Amino acid sequence: MKKIVLSLLMENNAGVLSRIAGLFSRRGYNIDSITAGETTTPGVTRMTVVASGEDEQLVQIKKQLAKLTEVLEIEELPEYDSVTRELILLKVRARAEERQQIIAVADVFRAKIVDVAQESLTVELTGNQSKIDAFINLLENYEIMEMARTGIIGVFRGMKSLGGEYTQS
Amino acid sequence: MKKIVLSLLMENNAGVLSRIAGLFSRRGYNIDSITAGETTTPGVTRMTVVASGEDEQLVQIKKQLAKLTEVLEIEELPEYDSVTRELILLKVRARAEERQQIIAVADVFRAKIVDVAQESLTVELTGNQSKIDAFINLLENYEIMEMARTGIIGVFRGMKSLGGEYTQS
Repeated sequence: MKKIVLSLLMENNAGVLSRIAGLFSRRGYNIDSITAGETTTPGVTRMTVVASGEDEQLVQIKKQLAKLTEVLEIEELPEYDSVTRELILLKVRARAEERQQIIAVADVFRAKIVDVAQESLTVELTGNQSKIDAFINLLENYEIMEMARTGIIGVFRGMKSLGGEYTQS
Repeated sequence: MKKIVLSLLMENNAGVLSRIAGLFSRRGYNIDSITAGETTTPGVTRMTVVASGEDEQLVQIKKQLAKLTEVLEIEELPEYDSVTRELILLKVRARAEERQQIIAVADVFRAKIVDVAQESLTVELTGNQSKIDAFINLLENYEIMEMARTGIIGVFRGMKSLGGEYTQS
């Protein structure tokens, strides 16, 4: 199993997310995450799709997405030539005797404590996949009360950009 | 126009994102963002949906989502009793004479510079919607080369959590 991170620029019409999600579910492709957001160009959305599978299947996924009429640009973000990040919010039960330990873990990861209650701490962490996973693993020693995560977004390193003509301000 | 942030726990079957996106597009609902990620319970996904519209339409959106069989829990995150955050990666053209100004803007927002090239800077910023919007507005004075954003995620403040029985580790 390999993993790819695809970056897409798309026309932001109402049905496009549904078509993309439908494409993946009909074909039984494995999506790890889909994340979408506006660009500085009105009507154009940027989406990051993380998919895993065998080489041949990943080639198919890219080909099928590129065929959709709404897709303006699609490129794979190369692992060593891109910056990828995910954001999580995580609330963990913190009884008096656990609080300092949890704060120490958060400090090591440079996570930010965004809310404190009688018996809970809520932390915000941004990082690449392996940092996020390591942080969650450590906090699973405590009781995770709720967790929300965004899925991965990414951009190319250096001067390269995806479809420069659409995203320039 | 009002805006609501809905937090959902759902069975993670392949078609669910497609069904949710389809529901919105068929009914012409305005989604600002949909963000989904795993929870610590295998097979359960947590989704954050931000929608805008008139009061009555927002009630309908919530009702229609709650009806889907895959939806295990759905709650509105109240504005003053929740923590909401978004992550963006933004690459901006930075000629020699602009570099210091852009770094100064990034410092004020506590944005992190994650990549530097001959004529570009890539910054990572996490914050609530208004902080993110203010940052993008300021950087629009320069040339934004590419931007990827995750959409909003959120959790309740304090001890309250969404569907505790599904997310406990």
